[in-house]
Amino acid sequence: MEATEVKMRQNEIIQPLLTDLYQLTMAYAYWKSGKVDDTAVFDLFFRKNPFSGEFTIFAGLEQCIKFLFNFRYSDSDITYLKQILPPYVEEEFFRYLKNLTVEDVTLFAIPEGSVVFPRVPLLRVEGPLIVVQLLETTFLNLINYSSLIATNAARFRMAAGKRIKLLEFGLRRAQGPDGGLSASKYAYLGGFDGTSNVLAGKLFHIPVKGTHAHAYISSFSTLADLKTRDLAVYDENGSDLIESRDFVETCIKRRDQLATLLGILLQEANDGELAAFISYAMAFPDGFTALVDTYEVLRSGLLNFCAVAVALSDFGYRPIGIRLDSGDLAYLSNRARDAFRKIAEELTIPWFAQLSIVASNDINEETILSLNDQHHQIDCFGIGTHLVTCQKQPALGCVYKLVEINKQPKIKLSEDLEKVTIPGRKDIYRLYGSDGHALIDLMQKHGEPPPLAGNRVLCRHPFLESKRAYVNPARVEPLLHIYWQNGRCCQPLPSMEQLRHRVQHQLGTIRQDHKRNLNPTPYKVSVSDSLYSYLHKLWLQNAPIGELS
Amino acid sequence: MEATEVKMRQNEIIQPLLTDLYQLTMAYAYWKSGKVDDTAVFDLFFRKNPFSGEFTIFAGLEQCIKFLFNFRYSDSDITYLKQILPPYVEEEFFRYLKNLTVEDVTLFAIPEGSVVFPRVPLLRVEGPLIVVQLLETTFLNLINYSSLIATNAARFRMAAGKRIKLLEFGLRRAQGPDGGLSASKYAYLGGFDGTSNVLAGKLFHIPVKGTHAHAYISSFSTLADLKTRDLAVYDENGSDLIESRDFVETCIKRRDQLATLLGILLQEANDGELAAFISYAMAFPDGFTALVDTYEVLRSGLLNFCAVAVALSDFGYRPIGIRLDSGDLAYLSNRARDAFRKIAEELTIPWFAQLSIVASNDINEETILSLNDQHHQIDCFGIGTHLVTCQKQPALGCVYKLVEINKQPKIKLSEDLEKVTIPGRKDIYRLYGSDGHALIDLMQKHGEPPPLAGNRVLCRHPFLESKRAYVNPARVEPLLHIYWQNGRCCQPLPSMEQLRHRVQHQLGTIRQDHKRNLNPTPYKVSVSDSLYSYLHKLWLQNAPIGELS
Repeated sequence: MEATEVKMRQNEIIQPLLTDLYQLTMAYAYWKSGKVDDTAVFDLFFRKNPFSGEFTIFAGLEQCIKFLFNFRYSDSDITYLKQILPPYVEEEFFRYLKNLTVEDVTLFAIPEGSVVFPRVPLLRVEGPLIVVQLLETTFLNLINYSSLIATNAARFRMAAGKRIKLLEFGLRRAQGPDGGLSASKYAYLGGFDGTSNVLAGKLFHIPVKGTHAHAYISSFSTLADLKTRDLAVYDENGSDLIESRDFVETCIKRRDQLATLLGILLQEANDGELAAFISYAMAFPDGFTALVDTYEVLRSGLLNFCAVAVALSDFGYRPIGIRLDSGDLAYLSNRARDAFRKIAEELTIPWFAQLSIVASNDINEETILSLNDQHHQIDCFGIGTHLVTCQKQPALGCVYKLVEINKQPKIKLSEDLEKVTIPGRKDIYRLYGSDGHALIDLMQKHGEPPPLAGNRVLCRHPFLESKRAYVNPARVEPLLHIYWQNGRCCQPLPSMEQLRHRVQHQLGTIRQDHKRNLNPTPYKVSVSDSLYSYLHKLWLQNAPIGELS
Repeated sequence: MEATEVKMRQNEIIQPLLTDLYQLTMAYAYWKSGKVDDTAVFDLFFRKNPFSGEFTIFAGLEQCIKFLFNFRYSDSDITYLKQILPPYVEEEFFRYLKNLTVEDVTLFAIPEGSVVFPRVPLLRVEGPLIVVQLLETTFLNLINYSSLIATNAARFRMAAGKRIKLLEFGLRRAQGPDGGLSASKYAYLGGFDGTSNVLAGKLFHIPVKGTHAHAYISSFSTLADLKTRDLAVYDENGSDLIESRDFVETCIKRRDQLATLLGILLQEANDGELAAFISYAMAFPDGFTALVDTYEVLRSGLLNFCAVAVALSDFGYRPIGIRLDSGDLAYLSNRARDAFRKIAEELTIPWFAQLSIVASNDINEETILSLNDQHHQIDCFGIGTHLVTCQKQPALGCVYKLVEINKQPKIKLSEDLEKVTIPGRKDIYRLYGSDGHALIDLMQKHGEPPPLAGNRVLCRHPFLESKRAYVNPARVEPLLHIYWQNGRCCQPLPSMEQLRHRVQHQLGTIRQDHKRNLNPTPYKVSVSDSLYSYLHKLWLQNAPIGELS
């Protein structure tokens, strides 16, 4: 049990009061109206995929479960609520709140890391009306941004392709400290390879990456700023120390030689930059990456880098590469690659041609697609603002809607078809074709016999009568699983690595045309014939007949 | 001291590891290069005002100071860093980190809640190079979003005018739990009147507001769902309980009467909605606000609300008003106001005309300006997504640039003029005209005699030679103040209320044309003649002479 408690720990600000006040005023009004024993079912879903896309990655479920695990109003919460609620709110209600637990809540959910679509409930939350209502805001908060970032990351991954490394560099521009942490976590889940955020690395076991900033380069003015000059020389296997030698001298000699080779004027290369590179290489001889645009990439940074990188090779080390943080990234990456290849050939250092080129200047999905068209030579993108703030669309609009109360279905009507809810407890299935791709999601009334592989099933558009199709699935997957019941989490929570793999595997089951950047095809979400009739019967019962005069 | 520690507590995720890895790799490289005793000055500033505007509200300073107060690498931090840094990083460096403090850091800052402009340092951070470098990412994270939200909130306030109440309702759509908390806090600082976020209310002493959701209405189907019917009747002063009477009956009678008065068909009004309103009013007889758009505002919600509101009046209570969450808000608010006025007159309940109308459907700054043009009758806006995620521009681009090292000025050049930094330690002054409005901000080299009221001073554009002006200030205000020195906070930290007032007062000192929504005039930020020469001398020294061939 103690081990569980440790595992279920989360940021202390995720607590029952992290909610809208109206959840608590409603709780009192429900309580006061004698609705303590009423039961309800809520669906949590979104209505539109983000980023003009046609898919979403579902994330944040584990946080919701931890929230349930830790759900308890503290004495100080109760004291505070007494202060802000009107004085006539009954003492008995506060006792009720103090003793309130989520033991009777049952949570069904689609597994975290799944590809999901509009209108399909990601969560189905059942239990005492008051309690399940109280979970709304926190659940929405925990799922909206997590899913948004995971989806954004997955889109960047698709744009960049599998070969390219993607690093999240957004902490400084994130929406608050936790905006940064959540971004690092869910970007990794969505397909990134690492983050610059050290705390995210520590908390979530994500690979952490980083080199240096422009300030590091600027902090050196001349070669005289170098206070140590010697670096250990290793043998060819990198295992045995042979001697210590003057590394600075080697770098300077190599720069003279490479200036001629690369056709760069020696006097234009900045000596402060060279000093900074040398000092950084001496600190991290096996991990040398240099930011090459502080002065001029082609007239200074590239030459200085190559000089130090070749010198490292002379000393038995293997540098990593360069980072470009400004300018025409496709052009510069090609010029850098040319230089690396020339050196590889002329100095017979074959791996020099494969040195890594990282690019990191305000990159978004479209930049990557455009760089692809320009045949860039970039191996790794560092992505900040556009990833973490989801600049293209900074919020996902998940909602939490009542679909059943005391076993009676509820429908929420709206003039806007998209906003009409699909009533009642529902089971959800994903039907797959024989090529392994998902064909359609199907919602059924709870208790209808599930669709069977090899059997034709009628799938209907929830609102448009004429839109329907027979589907003959090769495989049927029930999407909702029970995650919380009787006060316990009833599924093993997957590790971050498992979630990462799930996302990529799930994306593989979705047809390419649903995933493409430009004008993707909408994936179909349908209802069974029986749910269709039920929905429309309720709709007519609830919609008043208009009267024009 | 203990009281200070309590006061200086903050969210546990704000800690030294909430940073980019490269700050730590740079720290090691600086340390390894013998730069432990080097000193540096960094400026934190932004280059462009957000939201196509011409001003920014500076916020997040208190968090930076708390971060300094609590700055210490823990044993577990050091253990983690040993895992992720290469094995050859020296043990002595980790001892250095473990003992590292911010005692020698001096922090100058513009007071929180000030109106600020591009290029002017919000913070000037001085001290040991390694230590001040290590503060970069966390400072940027704490200031970027806080300032962005405060600015956004101030813009909403200006759009809405002083009379209108503004409530922040964004928790569910915020970028993570802390995105929601920070939004609530800094929206209040920027000019909002309250939040729906209960935890923000508890932590930051912000007024918390809220009523009920559509689910509350939907959870009632008929009047039979009401399990209690009696409500206490108070005398006219509201102090003495006279008796308990059937409240439901009064509501039904009042609805019959008002349907005729307002010309609404009784059979179209939804009984479940009436039941929900009645139950809510019985729970909060002094705080009755009703969400009136679950079914149809004009055919159901408005009538049901008025019935319950008049009944409350019959029982000696005073209801608050309605909330509109969809539809044509200007039109609906006017129709509702008409109904309130008619009832006020016909039933002689004068205050009924002034019942509050809250609107809350995906509102942004432009919606408010457009509603103003349509002469809406709204008293209060509830604002979510657009406020908390700053949809119009979800990140502020503050940067942290090295301007001096070991007393030597540093300039960062760039092909892009906007990105050239202004070197050296600088003092900043705001010059005011005789009408009390700010005329210009002036940056000087540290130690230049400050400009004096009544004395003409030459103010120059930092980059464009021909742009200069003599300014004769009626008042001169130094902008940077010392906030942290010798390991201590050396200013009293203002309360939230003081910060709120400061923002509004500061906005009052800025000319209207800098603040308007459409094509605002840029506010001038200048350098002294001496700083101009210094900057340009350094620029020429550092810029290589190009060679075209």
